[in-house]
Amino acid sequence: MRDVIFDHNRAARIGLPEAVFCEGKPRASVLELLATLGVERDAPVLFTRLAADIVAELPAHLRVQLDYHPLSRTAFAARMPARTGRVAVVSAGTADSAVTWEAARTLDYLGIAATVYEDCGVAGLWRLVERIGDINAHDVVIVVAGLDAALASVLGAMTPKPVLAVPTSVGYGVANGGITALNSMLTTCAPGVGVFNIDNGYGAACAASRILGAR
Amino acid sequence: MRDVIFDHNRAARIGLPEAVFCEGKPRASVLELLATLGVERDAPVLFTRLAADIVAELPAHLRVQLDYHPLSRTAFAARMPARTGRVAVVSAGTADSAVTWEAARTLDYLGIAATVYEDCGVAGLWRLVERIGDINAHDVVIVVAGLDAALASVLGAMTPKPVLAVPTSVGYGVANGGITALNSMLTTCAPGVGVFNIDNGYGAACAASRILGAR
Amino acid sequence: MRDVIFDHNRAARIGLPEAVFCEGKPRASVLELLATLGVERDAPVLFTRLAADIVAELPAHLRVQLDYHPLSRTAFAARMPARTGRVAVVSAGTADSAVTWEAARTLDYLGIAATVYEDCGVAGLWRLVERIGDINAHDVVIVVAGLDAALASVLGAMTPKPVLAVPTSVGYGVANGGITALNSMLTTCAPGVGVFNIDNGYGAACAASRILGAR
Amino acid sequence: MRDVIFDHNRAARIGLPEAVFCEGKPRASVLELLATLGVERDAPVLFTRLAADIVAELPAHLRVQLDYHPLSRTAFAARMPARTGRVAVVSAGTADSAVTWEAARTLDYLGIAATVYEDCGVAGLWRLVERIGDINAHDVVIVVAGLDAALASVLGAMTPKPVLAVPTSVGYGVANGGITALNSMLTTCAPGVGVFNIDNGYGAACAASRILGAR
Amino acid sequence: MRDVIFDHNRAARIGLPEAVFCEGKPRASVLELLATLGVERDAPVLFTRLAADIVAELPAHLRVQLDYHPLSRTAFAARMPARTGRVAVVSAGTADSAVTWEAARTLDYLGIAATVYEDCGVAGLWRLVERIGDINAHDVVIVVAGLDAALASVLGAMTPKPVLAVPTSVGYGVANGGITALNSMLTTCAPGVGVFNIDNGYGAACAASRILGAR
Amino acid sequence: MRDVIFDHNRAARIGLPEAVFCEGKPRASVLELLATLGVERDAPVLFTRLAADIVAELPAHLRVQLDYHPLSRTAFAARMPARTGRVAVVSAGTADSAVTWEAARTLDYLGIAATVYEDCGVAGLWRLVERIGDINAHDVVIVVAGLDAALASVLGAMTPKPVLAVPTSVGYGVANGGITALNSMLTTCAPGVGVFNIDNGYGAACAASRILGAR
Amino acid sequence: MRDVIFDHNRAARIGLPEAVFCEGKPRASVLELLATLGVERDAPVLFTRLAADIVAELPAHLRVQLDYHPLSRTAFAARMPARTGRVAVVSAGTADSAVTWEAARTLDYLGIAATVYEDCGVAGLWRLVERIGDINAHDVVIVVAGLDAALASVLGAMTPKPVLAVPTSVGYGVANGGITALNSMLTTCAPGVGVFNIDNGYGAACAASRILGAR
Amino acid sequence: MRDVIFDHNRAARIGLPEAVFCEGKPRASVLELLATLGVERDAPVLFTRLAADIVAELPAHLRVQLDYHPLSRTAFAARMPARTGRVAVVSAGTADSAVTWEAARTLDYLGIAATVYEDCGVAGLWRLVERIGDINAHDVVIVVAGLDAALASVLGAMTPKPVLAVPTSVGYGVANGGITALNSMLTTCAPGVGVFNIDNGYGAACAASRILGAR
Repeated sequence: MRDVIFDHNRAARIGLPEAVFCEGKPRASVLELLATLGVERDAPVLFTRLAADIVAELPAHLRVQLDYHPLSRTAFAARMPARTGRVAVVSAGTADSAVTWEAARTLDYLGIAATVYEDCGVAGLWRLVERIGDINAHDVVIVVAGLDAALASVLGAMTPKPVLAVPTSVGYGVANGGITALNSMLTTCAPGVGVFNIDNGYGAACAASRILGAR
Repeated sequence: MRDVIFDHNRAARIGLPEAVFCEGKPRASVLELLATLGVERDAPVLFTRLAADIVAELPAHLRVQLDYHPLSRTAFAARMPARTGRVAVVSAGTADSAVTWEAARTLDYLGIAATVYEDCGVAGLWRLVERIGDINAHDVVIVVAGLDAALASVLGAMTPKPVLAVPTSVGYGVANGGITALNSMLTTCAPGVGVFNIDNGYGAACAASRILGAR
Repeated sequence: MRDVIFDHNRAARIGLPEAVFCEGKPRASVLELLATLGVERDAPVLFTRLAADIVAELPAHLRVQLDYHPLSRTAFAARMPARTGRVAVVSAGTADSAVTWEAARTLDYLGIAATVYEDCGVAGLWRLVERIGDINAHDVVIVVAGLDAALASVLGAMTPKPVLAVPTSVGYGVANGGITALNSMLTTCAPGVGVFNIDNGYGAACAASRILGAR
Repeated sequence: MRDVIFDHNRAARIGLPEAVFCEGKPRASVLELLATLGVERDAPVLFTRLAADIVAELPAHLRVQLDYHPLSRTAFAARMPARTGRVAVVSAGTADSAVTWEAARTLDYLGIAATVYEDCGVAGLWRLVERIGDINAHDVVIVVAGLDAALASVLGAMTPKPVLAVPTSVGYGVANGGITALNSMLTTCAPGVGVFNIDNGYGAACAASRILGAR
Repeated sequence: MRDVIFDHNRAARIGLPEAVFCEGKPRASVLELLATLGVERDAPVLFTRLAADIVAELPAHLRVQLDYHPLSRTAFAARMPARTGRVAVVSAGTADSAVTWEAARTLDYLGIAATVYEDCGVAGLWRLVERIGDINAHDVVIVVAGLDAALASVLGAMTPKPVLAVPTSVGYGVANGGITALNSMLTTCAPGVGVFNIDNGYGAACAASRILGAR
Repeated sequence: MRDVIFDHNRAARIGLPEAVFCEGKPRASVLELLATLGVERDAPVLFTRLAADIVAELPAHLRVQLDYHPLSRTAFAARMPARTGRVAVVSAGTADSAVTWEAARTLDYLGIAATVYEDCGVAGLWRLVERIGDINAHDVVIVVAGLDAALASVLGAMTPKPVLAVPTSVGYGVANGGITALNSMLTTCAPGVGVFNIDNGYGAACAASRILGAR
Repeated sequence: MRDVIFDHNRAARIGLPEAVFCEGKPRASVLELLATLGVERDAPVLFTRLAADIVAELPAHLRVQLDYHPLSRTAFAARMPARTGRVAVVSAGTADSAVTWEAARTLDYLGIAATVYEDCGVAGLWRLVERIGDINAHDVVIVVAGLDAALASVLGAMTPKPVLAVPTSVGYGVANGGITALNSMLTTCAPGVGVFNIDNGYGAACAASRILGAR
Repeated sequence: MRDVIFDHNRAARIGLPEAVFCEGKPRASVLELLATLGVERDAPVLFTRLAADIVAELPAHLRVQLDYHPLSRTAFAARMPARTGRVAVVSAGTADSAVTWEAARTLDYLGIAATVYEDCGVAGLWRLVERIGDINAHDVVIVVAGLDAALASVLGAMTPKPVLAVPTSVGYGVANGGITALNSMLTTCAPGVGVFNIDNGYGAACAASRILGAR
């Protein structure tokens, strides 16, 4: 009854191919998209928020063509052509890892080299101090943190690189599903930090791609 | 028509005399309380959130008996007896100074020695690092910060002392009148940080007094 | 792929060892941490928000080494050295017991003696009045309450001791997952009450430890 | 251009005459209503939230006919016939007095005897305990409180009478313009407490009137 | 480890016996309370928000002694002595029935006669108009409604009786779990309507009991 | 420095000419627009939210060309050509009149005949019942109400005409600047009521114009 | 115990028959209504938010009489008489399809022809531009969108037809269950767009019916 | 009493010199900073949110050295050295101009060439379409919009450049001081758009500087 109108032209227009956000879409639609676009190797498509049990439902001959990463819930059949520029993805803790790796995997799909630095939360500041030299050797810095997201401020004040901040929904009580981390990042006193929706590791990776493309 | 029932017994019961929060009270009531309790030197009373223009309305012979501090909007005629123990009041920036000094002045009134360390925001972390030794020589640490209040997390992870955190209402947009700073402090990953209402420097000073009294 | 960077030095720095908040962490990471750090008796680690079904998955020889408390969902293999000072944990009702016992168990782990007083809600004020003498014989008072959290105000006005208030998420409608209790505690007219995140019994226990350490 | 359609029949239908809430109405409309309905002695009308500077604009011969009470900002030219039954209006503090007296004045206008008990906040619980016998000699109890509104719970647990609770907008930070007091009253563990909009002393007085009328 | 301190004296103090709100309490505690207090016929106790699957776990000889009503999730073993006075419980629609019957069942337990009028929502105003005469023959009116809760305003403007309004959590989107109905009731232009927490049919019944007792 | 780019083509595209919302625009820009577009009689422009003191600053020869209506804060120099179709604007009370007349004046400017029915709030339902026949003789009904906005539900259930609902910001406390009225209208059980932003009388008038144009 | 009072007269009064919103209603009530009203072919009733597993519980001879559409969760046994006028239902993406088709199915039930245009989100604006001519050939336009709902603004600025906007609850983080889409639609700069509750496709269809009926 | 600790080293550390946000700082502090740092030509400092009446208080010989821009409320005495790279600042309307120009002026101070495109709101989409070629000739695009902020989505889908989105606080009702624009931008379906706090033109300019510096 419905025909999905795919925006095949998006990559030419904005440098980023259309991706499929799977959560909330009817299960049948996701399966159909996986079976068609998902295994297309010439114009590879990224699937995000893809539940493991949907992948498990795919016929085996399709499933093997798909590179599925359970922690980040991302999948793709092939990568975009490799590009110059390197991105550091720095996170506060293990609880943020699903989002951290959504960013890293999206960069991987986009053909961009990424290094992940986890467990850099400010409760043990020495962990960040030891690594800041390495981090600053990258072209763009993505920072992923929940709760009070103090890492965004501290890191933003230690690097001259573009800083892209992703709040996460970890925590309880007034962590408020990530709203506190989001607002904390938006009000950081470190100047020039761009912020993304809660848990939107994909968005920060796309912004890094725009920045690297603009060089 | 109304007779204020003052809780003169409070100091004996909880170690803290009643104070008068002036904002929102009818102007006439505040003036009457200033003219009576305000100049009582034997059982001195603290006035907080006291607007300068109300003080200016007091007859001169009463006004000279009152120690009024415009920045913190606090007043008292005499101090409580001096006590042992020292408190560090550490703030993120100049914009927090009204609250910072409400805490410091309340401690002064309660007979407790306080040292104020302003402009320690994490956007220039070296400012805090240089002073952490001095700060840790105190018995209790009060931290005052607005916006993302990252200072509370960073400082809480650098000191073993009791940490009392006061969010401030500085900032705009999603600073949201201090709600973001408050929630940020409540979700700090530094363990064991007690939090107070937005701009409540008075409350943190009272908590420091309880702690020093419990020794 | 990820290596957790444990902050082993935290106890020396702030007097409180790192703890593991289990909720939201990938299940495999929690199991690995339990199997390694969790059974370490020389530098014992506290696990909080640890679901019973994860514990049940541990091999039996590890499980027996772990002191797991289902109501509070806490676990540890050994206690920190015993310290002087006593803490009263006072709660409003049975519905608050998971949080009440998270505080009591954390104190136990930290080597601090704690007495628990449950069912002291103000709807039957005589229950608190009968016990206030006993409570005031402790060095620090933790108060745990949900809904309107009136207990924090009433108790804060009856004790000169440091008061640490933990709102709980019990209730429905405008109890709002504990936000009403939290805001009620933050606006209490009892002076000097430090407040913690909703359901954060662990945090209040850590603050009590800081206070007892500061003596 | 506009003709106000007054609901003259309301008293016959629900036992309460229409009142005029002045705030937000065009100034000219309020003045016109004061000059006509306001001085009508046979079917007296109550004006609430009436600013003093509007009253000052009335011609002197009208102004003298009006009983205006500045603290509560209420006015009427005559009272309704006296009725049996007595109401206690109990408030937490001086800062609540505008609302406290809006309730008391509305009762006065409705022909109902009211006793006001101010400064009964739980920070000094003895003030309420000393008066509870007197309060319970009334037929209905109105409780007025801001901030954490703990008084509603404590009083609700000490009286068998109908309890009508009015939150006030006093306070700062998370007092949130009275929302915290409102939600605190709505979640009180004292059973059977009816709650009114923030600062709505008028509404509670009308409810008391309904209760006394139902006897 | 924990001993529940039951407030047996409450009925003497405020005219309402203690009730047990079961939701959120540990399952074992609820079962123990049901097995002891729940079957006590001389001082019968009301259980609210009691899930059917907990009742099903009770031994059969206890279960038969308990009058359990699944729709309202209430249970008691016996009623309080019958009292004079009648209460009308008027609801907007079928979706409100769990709350409607929680009110009606609580009244039944308290020994008060109640009549239930369902499906009176203003979308078909004739349904209310036809019944208003009957409703007004009662001493107290409880109104139960969700969504925009317009019924509270319309009914409050048609009856001189005490009106107790209970918002319900029915609906989706900006119905917002009952917040819209709650705020709508609190801002009703019908004067003198007391409001209760969302879904709190129990509270309104207790308030009705206070009113009937005050006669 | 800036050149406003006026969308002169809008009327041809969507049947509604561009209007100027003055609030928040720099004062100088508004004055310049009034002096140029404002007095253009061939392509008349509507100004909304135009403060009286800005109009007073216009040179007299321009001011006389402008039809300014202070209550609704609207101005225009000429009307659009008259069109067929009639709109009823029904409001709850006098406090809503600024919004009521913004709708009526916009219709007037658009060349559409409007009848205004004020003071139809449900607290006196007879006022609406008496007028419903007249109202239903119009082609479109705009309903304007604040507080609980019960009028939208009641009226929506009495008319088969298109109903356009405008919440107003009147009221205090949980009226919440019109949010309660807005959410109440959005959750009305009367089917098919379209809702507009708080105080947006202009928007409802434009929607009425679209509806009449679609005939 | 309860008898549903069906408002059979509604169609005569407002041109729209009563419908049954199934979510939140007791399961037994829904089944009973399906078995009676649901299969009535002369005065067909629409069921919305009807879960597939409830339909599956119906006896087969009833189930076959019911036209159930799983994606939109709507059911009816027969249509209302066909009417003139056509409605375009335009949506941003596949994730909105449950709401999109609730609108389309309701129109179908009401006897109104509808065309559905899916996947018109502004991230690929050419998809809307290509279809705008077709869309403008309809009498009313319903726009369905979640997230930032930019489609409502863009489409509202491209069509002179009545525009009815339905926000959807798709998305995560600050999409906030549809609140962002709702507020975005309410603040659109395209003039004259009426808005409905989140996910309320049914409501928009009813409004379209009112508009077509008013012609 | 207080000595501001200026972070002179910030430019070397993160490539951005410290700036002075004046709003909320004590007036005397701002004047002192203007008189010292403000006229320093070798290490020029940017002042933001600087009220015109504070500038007017400066002695004339200082005031002439300061380049003050009233619309954006920014001031500086000299520019940073000119750098390569060009930024487009695109806004929805005149009401956004204070923020638009805060961004443009900050870029100017940082030595970066900026082009401003105002009045590009989607209500007249042709205005953006005509200019998109020019805009895409820049290296970075800043988009400034309030209300529903649909421009961010539309523009983000038309350009491959880094997009930095600044919501503004214009509008009324559910525009909610810019929260709706903020959330709309955070949920945009255009991938890779970094968002800043409400009205934070300064922040977006700093982010542009980081991006240009990273090349």
